[in-house]
This record gives sequence, structure tokens and C-alpha cells, in this order.
Amino acid sequence: MSLPISFLSDFGLRDEFVGVVHGVLARLAPESRVIDVTHDVNRGDVRAGALAMTRAIQYLPEGVALVVVDPGVGSERKALALETAWGYFVGPDNGVLSPAVALAGGATKIVSIENPEAMIPSPGATFHGRDIFAPAAALLASGVAAIEELGPALSGVDVNPMLLLLPEIEADRIEGMVWWVDLFGNCQTNVGPDELSGLGLSPGSEVSVTVGGQTHRLPWVLAYSDQAKGGALLHVDSAGLMAIAVNDGSAAEHLGLGEGTTVVFTR
Amino acid sequence: MSLPISFLSDFGLRDEFVGVVHGVLARLAPESRVIDVTHDVNRGDVRAGALAMTRAIQYLPEGVALVVVDPGVGSERKALALETAWGYFVGPDNGVLSPAVALAGGATKIVSIENPEAMIPSPGATFHGRDIFAPAAALLASGVAAIEELGPALSGVDVNPMLLLLPEIEADRIEGMVWWVDLFGNCQTNVGPDELSGLGLSPGSEVSVTVGGQTHRLPWVLAYSDQAKGGALLHVDSAGLMAIAVNDGSAAEHLGLGEGTTVVFTR
Amino acid sequence: MSLPISFLSDFGLRDEFVGVVHGVLARLAPESRVIDVTHDVNRGDVRAGALAMTRAIQYLPEGVALVVVDPGVGSERKALALETAWGYFVGPDNGVLSPAVALAGGATKIVSIENPEAMIPSPGATFHGRDIFAPAAALLASGVAAIEELGPALSGVDVNPMLLLLPEIEADRIEGMVWWVDLFGNCQTNVGPDELSGLGLSPGSEVSVTVGGQTHRLPWVLAYSDQAKGGALLHVDSAGLMAIAVNDGSAAEHLGLGEGTTVVFTR
Repeated sequence: MSLPISFLSDFGLRDEFVGVVHGVLARLAPESRVIDVTHDVNRGDVRAGALAMTRAIQYLPEGVALVVVDPGVGSERKALALETAWGYFVGPDNGVLSPAVALAGGATKIVSIENPEAMIPSPGATFHGRDIFAPAAALLASGVAAIEELGPALSGVDVNPMLLLLPEIEADRIEGMVWWVDLFGNCQTNVGPDELSGLGLSPGSEVSVTVGGQTHRLPWVLAYSDQAKGGALLHVDSAGLMAIAVNDGSAAEHLGLGEGTTVVFTR
Repeated sequence: MSLPISFLSDFGLRDEFVGVVHGVLARLAPESRVIDVTHDVNRGDVRAGALAMTRAIQYLPEGVALVVVDPGVGSERKALALETAWGYFVGPDNGVLSPAVALAGGATKIVSIENPEAMIPSPGATFHGRDIFAPAAALLASGVAAIEELGPALSGVDVNPMLLLLPEIEADRIEGMVWWVDLFGNCQTNVGPDELSGLGLSPGSEVSVTVGGQTHRLPWVLAYSDQAKGGALLHVDSAGLMAIAVNDGSAAEHLGLGEGTTVVFTR
Repeated sequence: MSLPISFLSDFGLRDEFVGVVHGVLARLAPESRVIDVTHDVNRGDVRAGALAMTRAIQYLPEGVALVVVDPGVGSERKALALETAWGYFVGPDNGVLSPAVALAGGATKIVSIENPEAMIPSPGATFHGRDIFAPAAALLASGVAAIEELGPALSGVDVNPMLLLLPEIEADRIEGMVWWVDLFGNCQTNVGPDELSGLGLSPGSEVSVTVGGQTHRLPWVLAYSDQAKGGALLHVDSAGLMAIAVNDGSAAEHLGLGEGTTVVFTR
């Protein structure tokens, strides 16, 4: 009854980093299935890694989440293992785990991974994914180690949170931002459909979307194909958030949007 | 006796889309092995996805083929599951499944996936790979659902075919086209060696290949290394079709070829 | 007791080549776990593939290593299977296997894969990864064939080695080279920390590093974060070799380094 391991990183696929971590997992948890969530998070983009894991977590099999986006590798930041109702989370203490752990109902146990017996000895200090995080994930997945054996317990206040800005909601406008631009240029905002409903808007409405001083009238549709090819639209995306897209095109290019861009919705 | 699942899409590997589908498969078919055929089909290129699956199918373990190249996601196009002698095929009704199904001997059963109990409820209508196709593939692979339980039966005439142009064969010339340009610039045509034999050509011959008004004399060789480095050549590729290549170079760049380019063969 | 298979190639992930090889492995060794070490070795770069496998091998589960970087595919070069204390190695006879085999303690048996019953019949001669190497790896992994059944025995002198240049060590200088530039621009050299110690240098020292006529004074630190952001540094990397890096940047760009660049270390 080895648990599945879901692995997300910013290692990229060009070098053998991801393969080496898979090797460590296979050696220490030979019965565990390993799912690659993605390894193309922009290098060191902790917020993007946290958001990707948060969008994915409810679809991943309960088990162990191994999340390595770690620009501070080798510094004093802690290595964490957390227990939740979903399963275990393993990764650096820089906030990358926090939103997904919160979505999983919060941590029931937290430890700082410090037990050298749970690590792979290494000449360098730059590949904690291989030497610290992967062994911890594999030991938890295989049941060889209990979480308490990985290191001393921490409490929630010892752990770095991730601040995710919520939209500003007024009677006649909502000021949000783009959280995620996917490979195809679809732009997810941090605004949900309930918030737009508060402005009296609903599917089928035209919505005023202001970006960089320019206001666009976008139809709130159900599917890309409800808009003409090349036309911009607003829809509830697969994570349940309002997203700006272009049918058969890139909303990011079309409207000049990037991660972090402010977006104002009005009637 | 869970069946293996072979998964092809145009999702790319930058975002977590492929990982999330793997998560759904792991939750619903925990014993099934999943093979990633490729996820880098050009976005929405149904024909390229169909051809890649057709080239791959005879090498994939019998089981379930999950093929998601779906520019019409969320529109009225049907979601299909088909039974063949090879196993099951699951994907959109836009022709992407048709050539591989034909190669597998044709469909013995076809259903339109409409049973909401076989789907994951979703706020949006843009990720049918996750919400409709992956669950159907997993239910078939694990044996939890029979194909008839996924939705109403269709007959072959209800399903969209994929038109693949055959070459025009005359006594002294064959007019074909480039079907596939791989990452390395090798250009597969829709012309087979038997057809060139009909012109009196065989391995070892020089062949006149006309592209964009220019005629090249290319040697028909057995391996790249039978031509000098940087030289263009003609050979039977690993799928059994005539392909234009450059030893240690890109035929696409060298001869100005792209997918769809007309290629005329003469003696 | 099917063995795990670790698979490295230069096939890239855009086309279905890697997926097709996975299909062949799944058909012939359905119980074997397959680990993708990397598939983004630069096309035909035998040395880069050999070095990546060498860095990875100690972290991969004992079993079968399938290594396909094969610019001479279809030529007279042999197809090899080797037995070592770690397990089996399968790949072309161009040196790509040699350093990892040496690290694994050397070969106890070597055969030239020539038995047609161990191959997949193919119309072309350009995809030996699918038709020759994958079947051999799967037959060894599943135990269906003993290595002797794949073809005639060879001795070590029949096999092509890989020449890896060692640094030139003098009393007051070490002349080495860059062996590997990773995706992030970190530059691994062929010089180890013991060799720098011989110059009287140690962690905490400033080291003179001369590249292309320019000398840089770099601090020898333990982690990227021991240097200011944007600053260059020297450290022992995760493979135990001296590497030049830039905290939150690319040493390759910053110092004009590439694979093969000469690097001179002095006090």
C-alpha cells in the first residue's frame, strides 16, 4: 500500500534533474506511482508553482505531493513535510506548499526535515530535490518512515505563508488581477463568477474589462466556440475562475496581459 | 487486469494540464499504466494528432487510446468512445481518432459519451480532457464501466471521418505531399515505396523530386549515413513511407518543405 | 521480478518517438517501471548523452539503462548490450554507454545485438531505438532473454570508448574545461575540489578563473545564496565537480561559457 507521489518542479525537462529525482523515488519507493504535475514552472517562480499545485490538487490521487520550486536552495530556509487530510506535502518553506495545503484542509502535523538518515549524502548543496525532498517523499509514500522521524515538529506559525491577493470588490466595480497565463495565452484572473454576479452580470452578459487604460466589451460565454474565431471572450475556466481568452488565439497577446496585470470589471 | 492507457494531446508540457489528466487516470484506474505518446501536437492540429496516433498505434500495448486534440471543446461536437480489435479509443468526434481506428480494423461499437455519472462535474466547459475523456478512458481501462454505459450507441455514419489525401499516381509521375515534418526537419510524404517502384525506381536509384518549381536529384538510400553529411536524400522511413531527409541536417529548411507541401516524384 | 528501465535519448518530446519506445517497452516488459532520464540531449551529441547518464546512474534503480543517442543509426556501428554489477546497458557502440559502464565497475559481458528474433521487423533503418534497442532492453528487463541470446559476445577491446579529457594539473594552475551547461546556465567543469585544494584553495577562498583571456575573481561558496543576486560564484555542484554559477542568473551568459570552453584556475 505504497502511496502515489505527485511531483511538481521548476527543473525543466532539458537536463536529467527530473529523471534523477524519479530514480531516487523508484529506489526508495519502488511500488509508488509517480505523476509529473509539471516541471516547467518558470525558474524560481514560487507563486506560479503554488498556484499550479492548488489548481491540480483536487484531481491528484491522495498520497504525497512533492513540490520543488526553491530559489533559496542551500540557504537557511527549512525543508518541510506536512500531513493533511489529503496526504503529505513535501517541499521548501517558502510558501510554495501553503495554498494547496490550505485547500486540503490545513496541516495536522508539520516537521522540519533535518534527520540526516532521511537524506542522501551529497557533495554539493544545490540539489535538495534529489538529496532531501525526494527521499522524504519516498519514505512517507512507502511507509518506511513516519513523518515524526523526518525531523522536529513545527507549528503553523513557524511556516512561511503565501500571500495571494484577493480582488477589491466595490458596488460597481471589481479590481482583480491576472493570476496565470497558460501556454496558449488564456488569462485566469483571481475573480470568481459569484463576484461578477454581484455586479448584476451573468453568462450571456457583455462585460466591460479595463486593462492598462483600455476598456474592452467582452461577452461572457460558456465555451471558446461561442465566440467568433479571433474574438476575445470572458468565461468561467476549468478552475472555476473568470478567465479572458481568445477563440483560437492568445488573449495575453491580444489584450496585452501578463501574470500580475490589473484587470477591472464593470457592467 | 486493468488495461494500459496511451495518451496523446496538444496540451503541451508547460502547464499542469497533462499532470491533471494523469491524476484523474490514477484516481479512477489506479492499476493502469499510462503511456504519454506525445503532448506537443500543434495546438488544435487535428490532422497532425491523427497522423501521430496512426504511426504509433501498432507499437502501443493493447488497451485504451486517449486522444485529445479538440479545438471545438465545449461546442456541440460529440465525445466518442469506440471499441476495436486493438482496444478502446476515446476522444472528440472531429476525425482525430478515425485513421488509427481504421488501422485497428474499424470500430465494433461506438458510443457518444453523455452519461453524467461517467464525468467529473466542472465549473467550466474548456477542459473536457480532464472532465469527460479521462474519466471515460479510466472507466474502460479499469473495467468499472462497459462502453455501453457511457452513453447512447452511434453507427459509423454518425462519426466524422478524417480525409487524408492520397497521392495522384500517373504513368510517369507521382504527385504527393508532405504529411509530417518531425522535430529534426525530416519530411514524411504520403507516398510509399511501392508507388515509386511503379515508376521503375528502387533503392540505389536517383530520384527527381520537384518542390516549389525546383527539381532535386536525390539518392534513394537505406540510412542517413549512406549520404554525405549535409546532403539531401530519400529513404523509406520508420513508418514505411518515402521521406526526404538531410544527413545531420534539416530537410525542411534545406528544401523549403512544410506540412502540406506538394512533392512530385519522377524518374 | 521485472527490472526497471531507465531511458535516455535525444529524441525530444515534440514527436511521438519517445511514446512509441514506451509502447514497445510496455508490450515486451509490461511489469517494468520506466524512468525517463531525459530526452532533450542535443541531437546527436554523444558526449552530452554519455555525461548525463554518468551523472544520473548512481541515483537510478538497478536494472536496465537504455541510452539512445545515435547519429550513426543505420550505419555499420554495432548495437550493444552490456552486463555490469549495476545491471544492463543497451545502446549504440559510439561511446555513449562507456563512462556510465565504467562508473558501474565495467562490463562483465558484452554482446553485439544481432539476433533478428530479438528485434522488431521494420520497413526503414532509421529508428533502431524502437526496433532494436527497446526490444533488447525489454527482453533483458523482463528476463525473457538472457544477454547471450541477443547476439555474439564481444570483448572490451571491440567496443568504442569515449574520450573524456582530464584537466591539466600543474603546481600553480589547473587547466580544465566546461563539461556541461544546464538549462539555467550553470557551468560544470571537469575539475574536482581536491584538485583546487592542491592549489591551496578551499571553500571560502577567492579563486582566479580565467576564461577567454579574462580573469574573474570568484568566491568559492557552498550555496548560490551565499553570493549576492546576479553575482558569479564557484561551488561544488551536485555531481561533486567545481561549477561556475550566477545566483539567480546564467553563468554561461555572464562569463561567455559554453560546453568545451577552456577554464584556467589559479590562486
